[in-house]
Amino acid sequence: MDNQPEMKPYVIGLDLGGTNSVFGIVDSRGEIKATTAIKTQGYASVADYVKASCTALEVIIDQVGGIDNIKAMGIGAPNANYYKGTIEHAPNLTWAHDTEVPLAQMFSDRIGIPVAITNDANAAAIGEMTYGVARGMKNFIMLTLGTGVGSGIVLNGQVVYGSDGFAGELGHVIMCREHGRTCGCGRKGCLETYCSATGVARTAREMLQTTEEPSLLRELKPEEITSLDVSIAAGRGDILAKRVYEFTGKMLGEACADFAAFASPEAFIFFGGLTKAGSLLMDPIRRGYEESVMPVFKGKAMFLISSLEGASAAVLGASGIGWEL
Amino acid sequence: MDNQPEMKPYVIGLDLGGTNSVFGIVDSRGEIKATTAIKTQGYASVADYVKASCTALEVIIDQVGGIDNIKAMGIGAPNANYYKGTIEHAPNLTWAHDTEVPLAQMFSDRIGIPVAITNDANAAAIGEMTYGVARGMKNFIMLTLGTGVGSGIVLNGQVVYGSDGFAGELGHVIMCREHGRTCGCGRKGCLETYCSATGVARTAREMLQTTEEPSLLRELKPEEITSLDVSIAAGRGDILAKRVYEFTGKMLGEACADFAAFASPEAFIFFGGLTKAGSLLMDPIRRGYEESVMPVFKGKAMFLISSLEGASAAVLGASGIGWEL
Repeated sequence: MDNQPEMKPYVIGLDLGGTNSVFGIVDSRGEIKATTAIKTQGYASVADYVKASCTALEVIIDQVGGIDNIKAMGIGAPNANYYKGTIEHAPNLTWAHDTEVPLAQMFSDRIGIPVAITNDANAAAIGEMTYGVARGMKNFIMLTLGTGVGSGIVLNGQVVYGSDGFAGELGHVIMCREHGRTCGCGRKGCLETYCSATGVARTAREMLQTTEEPSLLRELKPEEITSLDVSIAAGRGDILAKRVYEFTGKMLGEACADFAAFASPEAFIFFGGLTKAGSLLMDPIRRGYEESVMPVFKGKAMFLISSLEGASAAVLGASGIGWEL
Repeated sequence: MDNQPEMKPYVIGLDLGGTNSVFGIVDSRGEIKATTAIKTQGYASVADYVKASCTALEVIIDQVGGIDNIKAMGIGAPNANYYKGTIEHAPNLTWAHDTEVPLAQMFSDRIGIPVAITNDANAAAIGEMTYGVARGMKNFIMLTLGTGVGSGIVLNGQVVYGSDGFAGELGHVIMCREHGRTCGCGRKGCLETYCSATGVARTAREMLQTTEEPSLLRELKPEEITSLDVSIAAGRGDILAKRVYEFTGKMLGEACADFAAFASPEAFIFFGGLTKAGSLLMDPIRRGYEESVMPVFKGKAMFLISSLEGASAAVLGASGIGWEL
């Protein structure tokens, strides 16, 4: 056979964050063979950013035996459009502010391998499918619970990008149609306003204000309470703090019940800071789900925490895109 | 080349309803070349039903030049599971009540061509993609507005079946989490309880009871009002009846806004009795959608009425599955 594919053992992953850009060279089992990083900001143009990236990359590419060993590169970044290979109007990136940057093509032109880009939550889903708890799954939904609520949806083994590349914004389904909390997206009642880390802190502040319940959280200044404080208090048995997680988990479970009506996934996988609360959060999610899901879906879906938590998760996620190219 | 595919010009479609089973032989442009029908009920067993079907089918298969001209067969049926090829616990089918019937395999064994089965709303989506307004679309959502609200979801050019074959139950996302209407599925506040034909009649009765608004509908017995009566009254300028469609359309639009956050489809396509109201329904849907959808999706999706309305739509839909086998 002439056209037997070359077996290139590695892919590059780039976790492009607001502060740092972290690169990793990864093998098919999710082992990071070499890593480097540069600052994301401080470049006059995107061309300068790509140039600095490639200078840093050269070193670690040499460490794994050169570019011939590398199949492709994946980038996880805010406001990324998979179809176009661009970053669009990213408010936190000086060189991609108010414009469309063809980042995938620019990297590809310089390094000479295929490059694709997607948003952080889709990258997390791909990482989970490639190296994590979603290995072998064809239908699952990843929910990232951080400052906001992001999502990556995989159906029929493929990430759902929709008609424009922006599908999978499950943090912005409406959970409260009346008197909902104001969301950063300009609307009211979005899931994200309740079930993100900031939503949890907001719920705690509301409960402290509207009840007389004694709580360890009353020792803190209300405006300084974080989801971590709530989690620590709940771990110490604080009733109000536990109630915050009950409320948050129940709403996430109800949202997942609606997502099941859409996609009937095999699993819901949770990623990000809030999952550190463990069963404090996961038990109410499961209960809220089973109580509110359609009978035909009851007892079918798994509720899992990402197995790629930690500093390297985002790089692994981004690298996972590389295998699909 | 040895393995050039044979060009078989036709597929069979079976619209398996509670009363009648309608068969059609269809070409690739959606023209029905021959058709026949039998009663669905009155057979002692599923074997007898399949036998009677095949006797009727033989005649129309001969009319198109024999079985060698037929590629495959698709069945649209209630409670159908695409993955398993079965009808499961269909309350309205005497021979599939309280059991799982491997209908696809039984037909395939008898006729000697591939056979697949799916539920009515998925069949409608496939029909629209094969012969109708969704030709060439890779991402769209079909909503069937009849006695209930059904849905067929197509993403990346494929019907979404989910992990168990039952995905796409968008009639059962929860639109009212408090004081919602009781649904046939056993829960409360489902989209279907408001935006089906029965939901529209229910809304009209509620508005007649809770307001003093004069209305042509007051001439009817409340319990006998149908969505058709509401549509006729609205067409005559009846303000209360128009308000019913405003309410219904707005909620459908809001639901579609959440579906956009999930899948960002190119179009929402509406099918079934309620769409006869035309712009009375479609205008409020579009307005409700644009007012409530995330900014990134504004102005992108099309809102269309099925081009396959009419008696043959269900047969065409079912036959569409055949081309994919």
